[in-house]
Amino acid sequence: MKKSKIVVIGGGTGTFTILSGLKKFPNLDLSVIVSMMDDGGSNRVIRDEFGLLPTSDLRQCMVALASSDSDQTLRKLFTYRYGQGVGISGMTFGNLFMAALTDIYGGDQRKAIEETSEVLGVKGKIIPVTFEKTNLVATYENGKQVLGEHDIDEPDISLGNYRIIKLEVIPKAKVNKDALIAIKNADLIVLGPGDFYTSILPNLVVDGIGLQIKKSKAKIVFVANLMTKFGQTVGFKASDFISEVEKYLSGKSLDFCILNKSNHFSKNMLSKYKKENAEPVKDDLKNLKSKTKVIRKSVISSKVYQKAKSDKLERSLIRHDSDKLAKAVVELL
Amino acid sequence: MKKSKIVVIGGGTGTFTILSGLKKFPNLDLSVIVSMMDDGGSNRVIRDEFGLLPTSDLRQCMVALASSDSDQTLRKLFTYRYGQGVGISGMTFGNLFMAALTDIYGGDQRKAIEETSEVLGVKGKIIPVTFEKTNLVATYENGKQVLGEHDIDEPDISLGNYRIIKLEVIPKAKVNKDALIAIKNADLIVLGPGDFYTSILPNLVVDGIGLQIKKSKAKIVFVANLMTKFGQTVGFKASDFISEVEKYLSGKSLDFCILNKSNHFSKNMLSKYKKENAEPVKDDLKNLKSKTKVIRKSVISSKVYQKAKSDKLERSLIRHDSDKLAKAVVELL
Repeated sequence: MKKSKIVVIGGGTGTFTILSGLKKFPNLDLSVIVSMMDDGGSNRVIRDEFGLLPTSDLRQCMVALASSDSDQTLRKLFTYRYGQGVGISGMTFGNLFMAALTDIYGGDQRKAIEETSEVLGVKGKIIPVTFEKTNLVATYENGKQVLGEHDIDEPDISLGNYRIIKLEVIPKAKVNKDALIAIKNADLIVLGPGDFYTSILPNLVVDGIGLQIKKSKAKIVFVANLMTKFGQTVGFKASDFISEVEKYLSGKSLDFCILNKSNHFSKNMLSKYKKENAEPVKDDLKNLKSKTKVIRKSVISSKVYQKAKSDKLERSLIRHDSDKLAKAVVELL
Repeated sequence: MKKSKIVVIGGGTGTFTILSGLKKFPNLDLSVIVSMMDDGGSNRVIRDEFGLLPTSDLRQCMVALASSDSDQTLRKLFTYRYGQGVGISGMTFGNLFMAALTDIYGGDQRKAIEETSEVLGVKGKIIPVTFEKTNLVATYENGKQVLGEHDIDEPDISLGNYRIIKLEVIPKAKVNKDALIAIKNADLIVLGPGDFYTSILPNLVVDGIGLQIKKSKAKIVFVANLMTKFGQTVGFKASDFISEVEKYLSGKSLDFCILNKSNHFSKNMLSKYKKENAEPVKDDLKNLKSKTKVIRKSVISSKVYQKAKSDKLERSLIRHDSDKLAKAVVELL
């Protein structure tokens, strides 16, 4: 039986979630295209002090796709974040692993990714969207610009309620050919889930990616965000996400949008989000005029995420459920 | 066929050398007792910032005994030393690996050593002489005392020509029972090669080790140092090493001493050592009155050691040859 080719596009914990679920299906040929503009936390050190491309998103994808037959100790280590050591606290073992390996291979991060995938028995292909150093730049509706993924992700309070009207990378980065090939050969392309302007769209703004998706014969599915996010998607309804994705795909229509069916969040949880000016994404797709077929399903995790003390970044508390989401995606094949 | 049990006692590069050679013999049951008082370089960070026992010597032993069937990428990584990153440069990957693993196992370094040995397919048993935090203290013939392995290893110029009359650990550290068991069951105990007061004798001054060796029925061999060392063994002849080892074994006689036969060092090399007040160890054992049988063999490496730029510690240039030394040892069984 020919395996169905699925390409997931993203980076970050949302991508980790969906890959963890998809991995369990035996007849899938998985690839993941990963944004390479992260410059927060452990990645800042990797970028600024090691002069390397950021590896946190790659590392998370590898762990998600690691074979359960691979060494358990290594898989544990790859999710470990140091809590001690001057200059080391806050770093992840996986990032230090890949930095060492890249140095051993004379700076060749492609080789380092291959070798790490081999060690972890990764089931699938991990594809950085580019191997060139670049930075995200967001232009807001008030004309202000912010440089850097981390500062776009956790913006200045004065910018938080403005919409981003343009996202780009500076300097322009050459697309990784493997990403174009994967998109070309895909049966299904999955955009998301993940932070909209800092994990999903950063891939689409690398020259060639948006166009290749537009040309692709694959079905395209967007996994809608569960919550709006201060500084990125304040006030976004489901239709705003869809029209914004389609804009970055040069007007190509999405085939599917997976939308979480009913959000029964606790008051306590909602008030935590409310403090950060965030709320559940509203379903306004009943009268959607585009061709996109809306898949309404319960795809939310019943567990609330707890982050490690040594983790200095903000993380989502409400997340998708790996298995429910993967099932919803596979049903589209 | 019953395997012969060899216990190597040391730590550091000399121990790495002999283990690398012994590993190639199929019918040996190898154990290595490792001193745990190192507080220089990468180990200082591990001790002071992570609050763990030093791991550099353990790590070197693991690499020496790593199975060639184990993952090659991992073996490469274990010998890697970072050259970049604030707080990270100078650290070894292996030390960071074991620090992470120890933290994952709730501070249990014994478990971390076992798991690391498993990952690397270590052929033999790695036994820290103690699991308690302790420090070396050297008392010199002029009455001065120095605390700490690193400062004893690279002493103040004013102390360099005085002899060490007493070596001890403070606070007293409880011996690792596995070390006593290994010594008890050994057929052959190998002391050395290695820095005399900072790698070999530190094991013998942990309560119980010297006495257990004295009681043991195993043959005991000392691998004599090739060069004297400023601050430790200035002016030492072969007989000085032997009588000093026997002192720390409560007067027990060595069965064998392996002494390098003829030292043809280049003038250039000798002048480098001369600058550090070091010279080849002289063979004055012709009229030795003790029971020790002297084995004179060429056991020296023809290669000169080059150290990595990111390595901040002093290292020996003239070293034993793994295969020649291991052969000389195995012939004593």
